[in-house]
Amino acid sequence: MSAPTVESPFLATCRQQSDDRVPVWFMRQAGRSLPEYRQVRAGISMLDSCARPELVTEITLQPVRRYGVDAAIFYSDIMVPLKAAGIELDIVPGTGPVIAEPIRSAADVQRIRPLTVEQLPYVTEAVRLLVAELGETPLIGFAGAPFTLASYLVEGGPSKDYAKTKALMVSEPEVWHDLCSRLAQISATFLTAQVTAGARAVQLFDSWVGSLSAADYRASVLPHSAEVLETIGQYRVPRIHFGVGTGELLTLMGTAGAEVVGVDWRIPLDEASARLGHRYAVQGNLDPALLGAPWPVVAERTRAVIAAGAAAPGHIFNLGHGVPPGTDPAVLERIVDLVHDEGPEIRRAVE
Amino acid sequence: MSAPTVESPFLATCRQQSDDRVPVWFMRQAGRSLPEYRQVRAGISMLDSCARPELVTEITLQPVRRYGVDAAIFYSDIMVPLKAAGIELDIVPGTGPVIAEPIRSAADVQRIRPLTVEQLPYVTEAVRLLVAELGETPLIGFAGAPFTLASYLVEGGPSKDYAKTKALMVSEPEVWHDLCSRLAQISATFLTAQVTAGARAVQLFDSWVGSLSAADYRASVLPHSAEVLETIGQYRVPRIHFGVGTGELLTLMGTAGAEVVGVDWRIPLDEASARLGHRYAVQGNLDPALLGAPWPVVAERTRAVIAAGAAAPGHIFNLGHGVPPGTDPAVLERIVDLVHDEGPEIRRAVE
Repeated sequence: MSAPTVESPFLATCRQQSDDRVPVWFMRQAGRSLPEYRQVRAGISMLDSCARPELVTEITLQPVRRYGVDAAIFYSDIMVPLKAAGIELDIVPGTGPVIAEPIRSAADVQRIRPLTVEQLPYVTEAVRLLVAELGETPLIGFAGAPFTLASYLVEGGPSKDYAKTKALMVSEPEVWHDLCSRLAQISATFLTAQVTAGARAVQLFDSWVGSLSAADYRASVLPHSAEVLETIGQYRVPRIHFGVGTGELLTLMGTAGAEVVGVDWRIPLDEASARLGHRYAVQGNLDPALLGAPWPVVAERTRAVIAAGAAAPGHIFNLGHGVPPGTDPAVLERIVDLVHDEGPEIRRAVE
Repeated sequence: MSAPTVESPFLATCRQQSDDRVPVWFMRQAGRSLPEYRQVRAGISMLDSCARPELVTEITLQPVRRYGVDAAIFYSDIMVPLKAAGIELDIVPGTGPVIAEPIRSAADVQRIRPLTVEQLPYVTEAVRLLVAELGETPLIGFAGAPFTLASYLVEGGPSKDYAKTKALMVSEPEVWHDLCSRLAQISATFLTAQVTAGARAVQLFDSWVGSLSAADYRASVLPHSAEVLETIGQYRVPRIHFGVGTGELLTLMGTAGAEVVGVDWRIPLDEASARLGHRYAVQGNLDPALLGAPWPVVAERTRAVIAAGAAAPGHIFNLGHGVPPGTDPAVLERIVDLVHDEGPEIRRAVE
């Protein structure tokens, strides 16, 4: 990695060295909401698309070109490193990940082998292609956190209540910790592959962790997420840590080791930052369900997010969760423009 | 209604007049987890079953017989009063409510007519039959709260993100408030029918309100839920107010007018009671996703819930959400026995 002469607003904000500029990107900015994405993905399965470096490069670049966001996020799927580690799975359109043999016993867990960067050649290659194309725009690498990965492996697919996952977690803690240790290794290796090839930040997605109480999170999940973040710490890239519905967990998530904590739309960013002791940059948190509202409403809410974010020692504008597939890209484009154009003024008015 | 000579532990706890007994019932205790339910429902649609007083009586009584819970909850569906008010809808197995013509405009809202108790004769009859059978076991009436009802009407069915509902709420506040006022009238009438026929407590379900921020809840939802609870206040029966994922809303929900606040599993009951200023009885909050864990784990968690509940001025044991369809009834039976047998001692040990 060669450091750029001028650091990007996104990276500066991650490091709490921002001026009044508000960097912006969107979780799932590359994806089904973009017609150019649907076009290049036609006839190609999700997992196949993730293994084609030129296609990954094109898809990752699409929202950067269209929106002028301050960061690209690597186009992949949290299940990709699990498949690379030898777990048989598919991503079924309209359903999500489907695991051929769900992981529910000590013997099942022992089948999960460690992952090496060498098993991810298409990731390394795609990141290198991307970094060359992106210029000064930083690429964010990402991975699923152990709990969220475990939830798919134990349930066998998406779940509403994570009943099998929670039952394993509370009834067989040794098996659970063995599982999550292995997933932490895989997650960290997936991130390492991206960072050593040139990604300049990472985001750890623990999307479904909001289904847990703080006590269960602390005992059964936090140590494994912290392990992933610590492993990646040696590369000195900013780390973002995100989950949905994490109001009860936010203080604990702050201790996991990331520089930036992602927040969903349920908590105003000033309140979130207060719970985090104003020690981390925050990322978020426009409610993606509001993207279909008339523009004046979206604009007003966008401004409110920027104003609340000024309370934190750094604010990266984002949605509170991923871009819904039905989103009109024109709305995201207007949001980026608003954040860039009005962000500094709104922040100064709050200060 | 003739008052019983000795008030039930459930009602006493609602009124903060309990001794150390811990009353217990389960949301959705009457339903698919019971083989005797699946037997009597065979071949009968959900909405049809709700309109047959003898069947409603049988289904409502089934869990009381089997578990010896401290309260019965009226077997019905939150959509029943909407159908009675003339809204064309069905409840489709495996899907949930499906609205023939979703409500999305001022003109749509104006089609919603007020409901009268006389339009619910099968409810009145079923409650009368039930009260005669139940003896001293109180019957809890219930209704959906305006936001949760509105979410089905606006989306046209179940939703993951409530995008259309939220868009209407924030972009057309007058239409939204008109809609919720009408739904509050319908909800209150559904409760009135149950209470005037003999139900001795009510629960207002705002199941999906946890998708909102506190600011949106306060401005757009709370006044309408409060209106329902206020209307029902004249009958002097305890009111329970429940939603899922309400950590950020709990303080506000306490102000809505209920005597009891239901809490999901994400917040320990002592913490929940503290947020409520220790002014209300609490109900909850064993994680239903744990019901499939081995009994020693379920027992330990049940005891922990009882211990945390001792911090509140009253605690009704329940799950943090409804009984999952796949639950083994034997587990619920053991929980009831544990709560009854060990509850008083656990409470005394905490005090």
